[in-house]
Amino acid sequence: MTITVFGFTRSPFSHTIYYVLKELGLSYEIVQPNSYEDIKTPEYLATKHPFGKNPYLDDGDFHIYETRAIARYLVNKYQGTKNSTILIPTDVQKAALVEQFISVEISYYTEPLFKMVRQYALKKHKGIEPDLKIINEAREEFEKTLDVYEKLLEGKDYLTGEFSLADLFHVSVTSFTLSFGEEELMNKRPNVSRWWKNISERESWKNIVAEYKSENTQ
Amino acid sequence: MTITVFGFTRSPFSHTIYYVLKELGLSYEIVQPNSYEDIKTPEYLATKHPFGKNPYLDDGDFHIYETRAIARYLVNKYQGTKNSTILIPTDVQKAALVEQFISVEISYYTEPLFKMVRQYALKKHKGIEPDLKIINEAREEFEKTLDVYEKLLEGKDYLTGEFSLADLFHVSVTSFTLSFGEEELMNKRPNVSRWWKNISERESWKNIVAEYKSENTQ
Ligand SMILES: N[C@@H](CCC(=O)N[C@@H](CS)C(=O)NCC(=O)O)C(=O)O
Ligand SMILES: N[C@@H](CCC(=O)N[C@@H](CS)C(=O)NCC(=O)O)C(=O)O
Repeated sequence: MTITVFGFTRSPFSHTIYYVLKELGLSYEIVQPNSYEDIKTPEYLATKHPFGKNPYLDDGDFHIYETRAIARYLVNKYQGTKNSTILIPTDVQKAALVEQFISVEISYYTEPLFKMVRQYALKKHKGIEPDLKIINEAREEFEKTLDVYEKLLEGKDYLTGEFSLADLFHVSVTSFTLSFGEEELMNKRPNVSRWWKNISERESWKNIVAEYKSENTQ
Repeated sequence: MTITVFGFTRSPFSHTIYYVLKELGLSYEIVQPNSYEDIKTPEYLATKHPFGKNPYLDDGDFHIYETRAIARYLVNKYQGTKNSTILIPTDVQKAALVEQFISVEISYYTEPLFKMVRQYALKKHKGIEPDLKIINEAREEFEKTLDVYEKLLEGKDYLTGEFSLADLFHVSVTSFTLSFGEEELMNKRPNVSRWWKNISERESWKNIVAEYKSENTQ
């Protein structure tokens, strides 16, 4: 069965899915939309993603959309079949802590980063000057989150102690934000900086950065 | 072992957890903070919830925070032990579709609702007039989401076909929003309205509404 990821190869959401696929040792094909219009057609909305987003994934004839749901599906279906990487442990309590930190990522981490990214993207795609007030407020909010992470990561290499899907979900969006001249963000706090190194210098992520480099700084 | 839910009984997040507990047939104790200050103390941040939020849950000596992670934990640990209610199916593809709709709820549904709720809460708690422009824009955004739900729910009683954790996650936040004079929101579209009836008129939710009625319209 072929796994196909449909989505822009420059999108941080697609990169998260490639990262999961590579960690699990799975091969996959990529199909790209030609343009934004392609993901807003009635046919696309009716059969691919009802909210007009990408990525989605086809695994044989099973179709699924929404990045984090796709990631969990791949783990549940394929973890342990190609290699020994564990992204969600089978132990119920350990799995619960992975989910806890996924919710932390969604609730307190990625939101301020996306506020920044949206401003930078305006500049890049439409030549509109970014609103520095919004960027600075979002950065401040993000730094407060990093202050909490600094404590959470005391004496730990990863959020739950071991590398997991929760760590992985942070990588693409952070890397994307840093690429807009925000490289210093992850260097100021020793625990965060060590963690960031651990999760962004894995072989499979380095391969993704190398493969999609040209599109990587959208 | 005792399950304790720590959190304001008027909070929609707490209600989501009670709903899961009741669906799974579990009994639980509730401990309430005395005030918002209680969830911002250094001790609370260090040992209960590092971002100063509630609810959290203690199951014997296992401690976990973040509503959706708590819910998944309860399902993974207890589903099938007290009754036959299934909130996440064991079939990998069916479970993946539950996760898909949980991500839909987070990404397109709850965000506009919370924008409205925050305005109404200002009025209620601080006597500040709500910003009608923000409310109207958020309502419009929400109605667009409901238009998509109307299609998704064509010929279906629940998002994945069968009642699941994805449906459940919609109930508390919707019910909370409707209580601010938005009762009409869920009545205008036949499929949405049927679905809303299905998920909000379950025995366990009706019990929660009855039990916490006095606090329910915060
Ligand atoms: N909640 C979705 C978000 C996906 C998303 O926002 N994708 C962007 C990637 S470029 C997109 O499709 N944007 C197009 C649009 O919003 O019109 C997920 O987690 O997969
Ligand atoms: N992401 C959290 C959000 C919890 C949340 O926002 N709880 C509110 C309930 S009242 C709270 O603690 N607010 C206090 C505050 O933000 O200071 C979850 O899903 O549990």
